[in-house]
Amino acid sequence: MPTVIVKESQVAGEVRGRMVEGAALLLAKQGLQATSFSEVLKATGAPRGSIYHHFPEGKDQLVDAALDLVASRMLDGLAQQGGRGAVEVTEYVLGAWRFVLERSQFRAGCAVLAVAVAADSPGLLERAAAIFRAWRSCLAELYVRAGLAPAVAARFATSVIAATEGAVVMSRAEQSLEPLRLVGEDLLEQARRLSAP
Amino acid sequence: MPTVIVKESQVAGEVRGRMVEGAALLLAKQGLQATSFSEVLKATGAPRGSIYHHFPEGKDQLVDAALDLVASRMLDGLAQQGGRGAVEVTEYVLGAWRFVLERSQFRAGCAVLAVAVAADSPGLLERAAAIFRAWRSCLAELYVRAGLAPAVAARFATSVIAATEGAVVMSRAEQSLEPLRLVGEDLLEQARRLSAP
Repeated sequence: MPTVIVKESQVAGEVRGRMVEGAALLLAKQGLQATSFSEVLKATGAPRGSIYHHFPEGKDQLVDAALDLVASRMLDGLAQQGGRGAVEVTEYVLGAWRFVLERSQFRAGCAVLAVAVAADSPGLLERAAAIFRAWRSCLAELYVRAGLAPAVAARFATSVIAATEGAVVMSRAEQSLEPLRLVGEDLLEQARRLSAP
Repeated sequence: MPTVIVKESQVAGEVRGRMVEGAALLLAKQGLQATSFSEVLKATGAPRGSIYHHFPEGKDQLVDAALDLVASRMLDGLAQQGGRGAVEVTEYVLGAWRFVLERSQFRAGCAVLAVAVAADSPGLLERAAAIFRAWRSCLAELYVRAGLAPAVAARFATSVIAATEGAVVMSRAEQSLEPLRLVGEDLLEQARRLSAP
C-alpha cells in the first residue's frame, strides 16, 4: 500500500513537472498569451484533469511555477560559479543564453522577459521583476567575490542581464548568433577591464 | 467636389493614422496577442468598417504598419544626431527610452521587442529583425561619424540597442528607472572610453 501511494504521488509529481517544463518552454517560444492550458496539455500529453488537480488557481499559477523553474535554473547555474573571476562568470551567462538559442534553433528566448512584456496581472509582472532582481543581485555578489567594488559589481551585473536579455531577443529575431556574439565580446572586454588589478 | 475628396481622404488618413498609433501603443503596453482589432478600435474610437478598409490583409498588416511607425520614429530621431559625439548619441538613445517609460508611467516598453518575443508568423519576426538591424546599422554609422572604427562602432551599437532593450524590460517590470540608469551609466562610460583620443 505505501508503495502504491509513493508511486501515485510520483506520477502526479511527474505530470506536474512535465506541465511546468512545458509551460516554461511555451513561454520562451511563443510568449504569455499563447501559453494556454490547452497548449500545455497538447505539448506535454498531460491529462486534462491535471489542470484542476495541480493548478486550481488557474493559468497564473502554472506560469508562476514555470517562472520559478526558469529563475532557479539560472540561479543554480550562477551558484556554481562562486570563486571564479569576472570574465568566467560573464562567460557562463553568455553560454547559458547561447545554449537556449542553439538548442531551440533560435525558437526560444527568455520566458521571464516574455511574461514581463505581456503580463496582464500585477502579480505576474511583480514575479518577473523579482526574478530580474534576484539574477542581478546573485550576479553582483559573484562579481564582488571576484574582486569588484560593490557599486561597480551591481552596475555591471545589471548591464550583463540587460544586454544579454536584449541580445537574445535580437539573435532570435535575426535567427543568428551575431547580436549575442557582439554583445558578448563587449561584455567580456568590460569584465577584463573591471577585473584588471 | 475636389475639396470633398481631399477632406474624405484626410479623414480616412486620420483614422488609419490613429489606428496605427493605437496599435503601436497597445503593442508596447500589452504585447502582440492583446493587440487585437477590437482592442485597437476600442482604444482609438475608429469605426469597425475601417479595419477592412485600411487593413484588408488582416491584423499582421496593422502590426506591420505600427512597427513601421515605431521604427521610423527611432530612425528619425537618430538621423538628427548626425555629427554629434559618441556620448551624446548614446545619451539620445537612453533619453528616448527613458521618455517612453516615464510618459507611460512604466506601462509601455518596446513594441518591436514585444512582437519579436510573441511573433506567430515568420513575416512579423522577420519585420522585427529588420528593424533591429536598421537601428543597429544607423547607430553604428553615427558612431563611425563620431570617430569610432567601423568594427568597434558596429559592436558598440549592438550593445547599446541590446542593453537598452533589456533595461527597458527590467525597468518596466520593476516600475523603476534604476535598471535603465545603471545600464546607461555603463554605456556612457564605454562611449567616453571609446571616443577618447
